[in-house]
Amino acid sequence: MTIRFALLGAGRIGKVHARAITSNPTARLAAVADAMPKAADDIAAQYGCEVRTIDAIAGAADIDAVVICTPTDMHADLIEKFSNAGKAIFCEKPIDLSVQRVRDCLGVVAANKTLLMVGFNRRFDPHFMAVKAAIDNGEIGDVEMVTIVSRDPGPPPIDYVKRSGGIFRDMTIHDFDMARFLLREDIVTVSAQASVLVDKAIGAAGDYDSVSVMLATASGKHATISNSRRATYGYDQRIEAHGSFGSVAAENQRAVSIEIANAKGYTRPPLYDFFMTRYTQAYANEIAAFINAIGGKGPASPSGQDGLIALALADAAVTSVKEGRVVKVSEVLG
Amino acid sequence: MTIRFALLGAGRIGKVHARAITSNPTARLAAVADAMPKAADDIAAQYGCEVRTIDAIAGAADIDAVVICTPTDMHADLIEKFSNAGKAIFCEKPIDLSVQRVRDCLGVVAANKTLLMVGFNRRFDPHFMAVKAAIDNGEIGDVEMVTIVSRDPGPPPIDYVKRSGGIFRDMTIHDFDMARFLLREDIVTVSAQASVLVDKAIGAAGDYDSVSVMLATASGKHATISNSRRATYGYDQRIEAHGSFGSVAAENQRAVSIEIANAKGYTRPPLYDFFMTRYTQAYANEIAAFINAIGGKGPASPSGQDGLIALALADAAVTSVKEGRVVKVSEVLG
Amino acid sequence: MTIRFALLGAGRIGKVHARAITSNPTARLAAVADAMPKAADDIAAQYGCEVRTIDAIAGAADIDAVVICTPTDMHADLIEKFSNAGKAIFCEKPIDLSVQRVRDCLGVVAANKTLLMVGFNRRFDPHFMAVKAAIDNGEIGDVEMVTIVSRDPGPPPIDYVKRSGGIFRDMTIHDFDMARFLLREDIVTVSAQASVLVDKAIGAAGDYDSVSVMLATASGKHATISNSRRATYGYDQRIEAHGSFGSVAAENQRAVSIEIANAKGYTRPPLYDFFMTRYTQAYANEIAAFINAIGGKGPASPSGQDGLIALALADAAVTSVKEGRVVKVSEVLG
Amino acid sequence: MTIRFALLGAGRIGKVHARAITSNPTARLAAVADAMPKAADDIAAQYGCEVRTIDAIAGAADIDAVVICTPTDMHADLIEKFSNAGKAIFCEKPIDLSVQRVRDCLGVVAANKTLLMVGFNRRFDPHFMAVKAAIDNGEIGDVEMVTIVSRDPGPPPIDYVKRSGGIFRDMTIHDFDMARFLLREDIVTVSAQASVLVDKAIGAAGDYDSVSVMLATASGKHATISNSRRATYGYDQRIEAHGSFGSVAAENQRAVSIEIANAKGYTRPPLYDFFMTRYTQAYANEIAAFINAIGGKGPASPSGQDGLIALALADAAVTSVKEGRVVKVSEVLG
Repeated sequence: MTIRFALLGAGRIGKVHARAITSNPTARLAAVADAMPKAADDIAAQYGCEVRTIDAIAGAADIDAVVICTPTDMHADLIEKFSNAGKAIFCEKPIDLSVQRVRDCLGVVAANKTLLMVGFNRRFDPHFMAVKAAIDNGEIGDVEMVTIVSRDPGPPPIDYVKRSGGIFRDMTIHDFDMARFLLREDIVTVSAQASVLVDKAIGAAGDYDSVSVMLATASGKHATISNSRRATYGYDQRIEAHGSFGSVAAENQRAVSIEIANAKGYTRPPLYDFFMTRYTQAYANEIAAFINAIGGKGPASPSGQDGLIALALADAAVTSVKEGRVVKVSEVLG
Repeated sequence: MTIRFALLGAGRIGKVHARAITSNPTARLAAVADAMPKAADDIAAQYGCEVRTIDAIAGAADIDAVVICTPTDMHADLIEKFSNAGKAIFCEKPIDLSVQRVRDCLGVVAANKTLLMVGFNRRFDPHFMAVKAAIDNGEIGDVEMVTIVSRDPGPPPIDYVKRSGGIFRDMTIHDFDMARFLLREDIVTVSAQASVLVDKAIGAAGDYDSVSVMLATASGKHATISNSRRATYGYDQRIEAHGSFGSVAAENQRAVSIEIANAKGYTRPPLYDFFMTRYTQAYANEIAAFINAIGGKGPASPSGQDGLIALALADAAVTSVKEGRVVKVSEVLG
Repeated sequence: MTIRFALLGAGRIGKVHARAITSNPTARLAAVADAMPKAADDIAAQYGCEVRTIDAIAGAADIDAVVICTPTDMHADLIEKFSNAGKAIFCEKPIDLSVQRVRDCLGVVAANKTLLMVGFNRRFDPHFMAVKAAIDNGEIGDVEMVTIVSRDPGPPPIDYVKRSGGIFRDMTIHDFDMARFLLREDIVTVSAQASVLVDKAIGAAGDYDSVSVMLATASGKHATISNSRRATYGYDQRIEAHGSFGSVAAENQRAVSIEIANAKGYTRPPLYDFFMTRYTQAYANEIAAFINAIGGKGPASPSGQDGLIALALADAAVTSVKEGRVVKVSEVLG
Repeated sequence: MTIRFALLGAGRIGKVHARAITSNPTARLAAVADAMPKAADDIAAQYGCEVRTIDAIAGAADIDAVVICTPTDMHADLIEKFSNAGKAIFCEKPIDLSVQRVRDCLGVVAANKTLLMVGFNRRFDPHFMAVKAAIDNGEIGDVEMVTIVSRDPGPPPIDYVKRSGGIFRDMTIHDFDMARFLLREDIVTVSAQASVLVDKAIGAAGDYDSVSVMLATASGKHATISNSRRATYGYDQRIEAHGSFGSVAAENQRAVSIEIANAKGYTRPPLYDFFMTRYTQAYANEIAAFINAIGGKGPASPSGQDGLIALALADAAVTSVKEGRVVKVSEVLG
């Protein structure tokens, strides 16, 4: 059986998913929609699919699944619309910037028993998958402490910052999800500190560019997260899990693995400098997992609930910084 | 302009090139030929091209270029046939196992002014390309000594060994080409030693599985090559160039970059265990370079002459082992 | 001029300092005192110095400097005694487990203008010194975030735990000092979380074995510290400083740098498994720095004030865990 | 029992051994001799030993062992003298630059049943010892191919070059010994190539600065050696052994293990730039092994025979380069 896809949103990340869908032998990209006709036309021309409106896609009998890559503020509405239309749904993170809105949306999804998967792409990075597999295979015993360092090569445009929901909901949210994924236990408290060290304009926009977070679970496991919007040496993405038998860590990735030695020392090239090249394989694996889930060959994971909890952790971090205190996750999630 | 391709030979390496061609926006796979109908049909079904005979392809007006992936003993004949037919030609290494036959074949190519490129895929590996670029950019000064370690995960089937032309013409030939590529100067002497340490059946077939080679240029530059048909830890592919200002080395590659630490130490996974996964990107780059050459945007390199010289170095190595002496390349090439 | 030393305390760390003193060409070990006659006799026999009482040393004209390696609860009294006796003093950390007692003691030191240096050995580790030098040389720009992972190979004996003052004052205190050393700015807030994951007996003794800490400075710089009393792979000691131009990190150290590759992967040996072998060079450098300070060739650093502040940060961390809140350093130091 | 030592030669390497002897609890440095009174006096003053003549040492009842660190042309005579005097002898490599002279000297040693150990310090480097231990423990199966890269930071003074016996007898000799040590089988053939790429003055002095060597054993095992008198990045000392189950390699060593990441990439400092700092621990281990051998607790290894064979391999390499052919070791050793 071939899964027939429609792509909602033909921007940067939409193109990534279009390529993943069309490269997958059990999927077919049937339609694309975008508010910008040119963007939709480009995808249609490259992959031989139809340009349609969102409504037409929702009503179409020849579409099994949609991939939502629109701006964030449309996510929840589209999830509800396509849940009601009976389509399987893959939605880029976050579902919404409001915990309550996410909850309402997931209520619709649950009522319709819609298959929904949320785009935390890092869970599908081969290196992070191998870290998870090592944990699941018991190679480090009980996980005790997870350490995540995640730094962007440079700050995003201020326009993006303003509508991003803030660094915790935009950037750290990936790390919140990864911490949960690796700890395999619910987070109960969040402590965060945040400052503006990279770009004063980010502070003027009400956001931060340098944050640290500590998380704890009920059984006393820890995670620490360190984020910066600047890393001159590329896209710094490290995770490490420490357990009772040992530790496992994923190394940073670079496009070219050479080393030059001279009188100044031994030098390797900088890291990947863009999340799309760094996570190329992760995006392909992610869509493959969604297709598997539709075919009943695997879970629809990360789920809407995973999306909700990661957002709640971000909300807790925001409160922690604002009020200078440790925040219980139950304060946000009830 | 789109380059219209025919694929000659739909086996393992043919499939790799089919994917590279069809992924390239300026190329189209129009036809495929193979003595095994099933193999050709599979490629045709997957990529929507026609199955044709070799003769039909040679006579077709809608084919610009061919990619020769047949067994080695057909290479030279096919090069001549398609040179005479006016097609651009990409041929897998080696052109032939006989230096004289290669020379005759290149004579036809020259007479026809055919664009011919030979498949030394390693020149297109991103890491080795970066090594070459570092040399070309003067980052290590004058290259003085090149060190190559190249080991296969395990020995090939004995049937393959028997028709391979021997380890020097089958395996070391890549390293001969790489040594020339990095030294940027002609090799004048070859010393080799060879033994059977991995599999006695290889010795019974008249071949070796463990070889060492020293090469020298007229100006006194050196290259050393170490080959084994066995490496329990994967496909070991290291090159290093040492120069007057410093050194540059390409590191081994693995699919997954994690490290597990426990009481036994720090362990990273084995290397890629198959040349096709190790050199995936190299194969794509190689076909892209061929397409560029056809479009006049780059050289047809490595050339037929490069193929000839690498084979001559292999012949010299065979003689060096047989006669226990240093062999001048001029003894082979005149 | 040769500095004449007396060693107060001939236990494990005393022996380390005895070797450092006797290896230094500008120092001489003249006397040793210990409550256990055998321990003092051993040092005396090995290095040819006299066994004396503490009082005799305090009154001796032939002693210029003392190195205090006694149990912690004697440190402050000894500092005062030898400050009053006019000797230069090197004291192992901590000066005392009570901030008030440390303050009183430092009052005596100040009144006597005694040269006092406190034993935060890690500042003298060649690798950490190189990290500091890179920062001081501007190689990473302004330091923004310091990340420290520090894990012991295994938990100490419970008897030790009981009199240690707790993990923050015993183990994390080194990391507090290192964070200050690298951030080069005062810490203003401390957030900590702590749990018992390694050994329930540690919890029964009222202490923790797994802790995470976040520190912030007035200008918004961060440090995060991750500690565990267990690391199956050896003595894990990593520091990293992230700045506006780049990052600098010290790698873990092992006695033997080999790598074995086989079908299971690439394995390097575990790390040093003992702080004394890990920090051999640091201890020698530390005593050399003390000797330099006495000779007027360098600062007496880390100072008593450094010892006081590190202890205050530990106290703040204890309060942070107990009360589940962010603690201002000013709450402790006033 | 304390072994009483005399040091013959108080130059650079003599000082290294003096420190090793005096640091060893079972040894005592009793006397020193040197043609330069100042050099001997310095050692005597530092370590409290007597300055004596060589004859006085030979006739002294209070000397058990001598360490020969004189210029090479005195080694064989001194070995014979002290063999006849009944002392245990440690001699720096090489015993002599003439194979025949070495043989005669070893004849005297054998007749006197003198305990003689030759200073191939690299066998005692902790990292290389660990490589050897991995082989001896069967961790890589049967050793098949040994690869050695050994490069000096820069060329020695021309005066030194002229009396060194040439690069093969001066520098490569260490690698010849290491190859034998790791292969654990006699070398039967030597092929070498050599050139002058670093410093024309070396060529004018009749020597080479860049050499490659291939060695083979009777059973078909290989070793390759790559030497250069120049490495801008420090003292490059790598060995690797490849076997039927896997490989083991020793990594290069640096004084400071930090890594700085910035827009230009990730940079680690250069390597040690001097053999004495690189091999500090090896020199100490070497003298400890000699003391153990005297005490009957271990073999006197490397032996005089090891010194002879390494020299013979150097002679074979010289002939191989001169005559452009593969040389049998039996041509040199008979």
